[in-house]
Amino acid sequence: MSDPLPALRPGATIGILGGGQLGRMLALAGAKLGLKSHIYCPDPHSPAFDVTPFKTVAAYDDEAALRAFAAEVDIVTYEFENVPAATAELLASLKPLRPDANALAISQDRLAEKSFLASKNIPVAPYRAVHSLEELEAAVGELGLPAVLKTTRLGYDGKGQRVLRTQEDAAAAFAALKPHPLVLEGFVPFEKEISVVVARSADGTVRAYDPAENVHRAHILFTSTVPADVPAGVAKHAAMLAKVIVVALDYVGVLGVEFFVLGGERPSLLVNEIAPRVHNSGHWTEAVCLTDQFEQHMRAVAGWPLGDPQRYADVVMQNLIGDEVEIVPGGIGGDTQPHLYGKAEARPGRKMGHINRILRAN
Amino acid sequence: MSDPLPALRPGATIGILGGGQLGRMLALAGAKLGLKSHIYCPDPHSPAFDVTPFKTVAAYDDEAALRAFAAEVDIVTYEFENVPAATAELLASLKPLRPDANALAISQDRLAEKSFLASKNIPVAPYRAVHSLEELEAAVGELGLPAVLKTTRLGYDGKGQRVLRTQEDAAAAFAALKPHPLVLEGFVPFEKEISVVVARSADGTVRAYDPAENVHRAHILFTSTVPADVPAGVAKHAAMLAKVIVVALDYVGVLGVEFFVLGGERPSLLVNEIAPRVHNSGHWTEAVCLTDQFEQHMRAVAGWPLGDPQRYADVVMQNLIGDEVEIVPGGIGGDTQPHLYGKAEARPGRKMGHINRILRAN
Repeated sequence: MSDPLPALRPGATIGILGGGQLGRMLALAGAKLGLKSHIYCPDPHSPAFDVTPFKTVAAYDDEAALRAFAAEVDIVTYEFENVPAATAELLASLKPLRPDANALAISQDRLAEKSFLASKNIPVAPYRAVHSLEELEAAVGELGLPAVLKTTRLGYDGKGQRVLRTQEDAAAAFAALKPHPLVLEGFVPFEKEISVVVARSADGTVRAYDPAENVHRAHILFTSTVPADVPAGVAKHAAMLAKVIVVALDYVGVLGVEFFVLGGERPSLLVNEIAPRVHNSGHWTEAVCLTDQFEQHMRAVAGWPLGDPQRYADVVMQNLIGDEVEIVPGGIGGDTQPHLYGKAEARPGRKMGHINRILRAN
Repeated sequence: MSDPLPALRPGATIGILGGGQLGRMLALAGAKLGLKSHIYCPDPHSPAFDVTPFKTVAAYDDEAALRAFAAEVDIVTYEFENVPAATAELLASLKPLRPDANALAISQDRLAEKSFLASKNIPVAPYRAVHSLEELEAAVGELGLPAVLKTTRLGYDGKGQRVLRTQEDAAAAFAALKPHPLVLEGFVPFEKEISVVVARSADGTVRAYDPAENVHRAHILFTSTVPADVPAGVAKHAAMLAKVIVVALDYVGVLGVEFFVLGGERPSLLVNEIAPRVHNSGHWTEAVCLTDQFEQHMRAVAGWPLGDPQRYADVVMQNLIGDEVEIVPGGIGGDTQPHLYGKAEARPGRKMGHINRILRAN
């Protein structure tokens, strides 16, 4: 599909739905490109508001506010995939929306996402749609146990899912998880998780960053290490699959793809999920790439040429959760680049910032 | 001198005098550290205002505004050396000022600067203070011709100076340049200009970036290339001299030092001038250092540990003057990192942005 929109000029305004740390980092990257950001977020204390000239505090279903927002921006993007479909459609009718509403629709629904990926021959874990307890029991019979029952929408950081270990777990899990339908995923004995941040420009150029190896703690990303400890062929395959996905979606912007690496003599990959936005596991790009994922996304949505995802050093990104943020400033000498999000209160489980540590210069 | 001020906590506010591109880049760097910036600038269209939560639009001699500003910030720094002495003294009486008023007083007066440098055995070009035409004629006799007559204050980008080629040039130049006294500098047959950006933390740690080789065009910095094409001993000597200067000043923050490299079998160095702030010839650090000069300055003034000035690649920084800014977005693919300053109007001679181009990865 050709894209008739001309490149934005410096000084243009990019509307960003969502005012959390990802929106904030997008706005900071935009500022360096001479692009102004207008953050739209219902939370008046959104950290992104501190770094942008324009803001709207309004609900995502406030049609008047959305129309006013659209009138003031040249293009609209977002920092989270759970933008309501009606919001996306309204905005897309008023201004270019990048990535588009289709990318949102697919990535915010676990069944739609798996169906899309499978239709493109992208390997995913075995799964079944579950509309009823009877379907769940049949699915358990087909996929075996253990298996994971998940909501199709709004799951993140371990929320909205239950592990089924015995047949008896099924009814309670089915009752606990809402709304239906659900999706049952077969158990995948993966060795590790890796992820690829990939970008596609409006003219169809595709660039992928090196895969990161991700470690979670209490279902929240703890570290991303680059390079991932996988064979070169696996890293190349992951990048190739990520590129196939953005091409298949006719995507414009940065997208994160999480993979499970399955063990064995010939390691193989499954796609766990995709996120139509900059991704926590790509924060390492800030420290060691000429163009980081935030600048890359802003370049793409502005219709600009992509930058170089080349990596200058080995690096580990560590999230600072809750009071871990207190490592700053005492622990940030030498090899460490900190990035705090400007959140006032360090609540438990809250992502307050991250640090990038250089492991070895290339 | 010991510094009793404790390190600022994330969430603290740094007051910045000046709202141009340097203030803007400091504020952007501060945001990544979780530090808020309050920009004080008389120009309501200052580009830095777009990226900060707090701003004051007021004259630098508006005592009430300065007091209100000081009350709202935890520490004060600045993006330009021509902060009036009374402003600096008032602010320093209310909140910590970093770098301090002494650094300002020395660096904003060419005679005081040369006298300070000479007193520390830092080599400078031969010079004479010139209070009268008679003194000028005597100085020309001593230093020879050609020579350069300069104002002691407010000179930049070639403004406030005249080259004397003959005895007859003296009277006209003396009459044209104001205010008096002036300074006559002997002609220095330098081969090139290099500069070093150096930082000193509140606890006295000193770190220098690699020297950059600077090329000017119409008296405005055009490119800074790193590494500079000088012998390793010259690069080391330049870094050493820069470190001597910040130690002698009991300095806290980032400081730029411009050197002339004199030719001959054994190249030697003279200090041309110092700037008590982040420096245009240090913009390359953004692209290829884990900690760039802006983050380094904010770390230092916040009382935080310095970051690593290590360089990952060879790089050339090019200023975008006036309509050269139109290279963005068409010309920024691949190896180029752009940084625009968000200025609305591309007037001739105006610094609109810069680009960093990678020459070779290390």
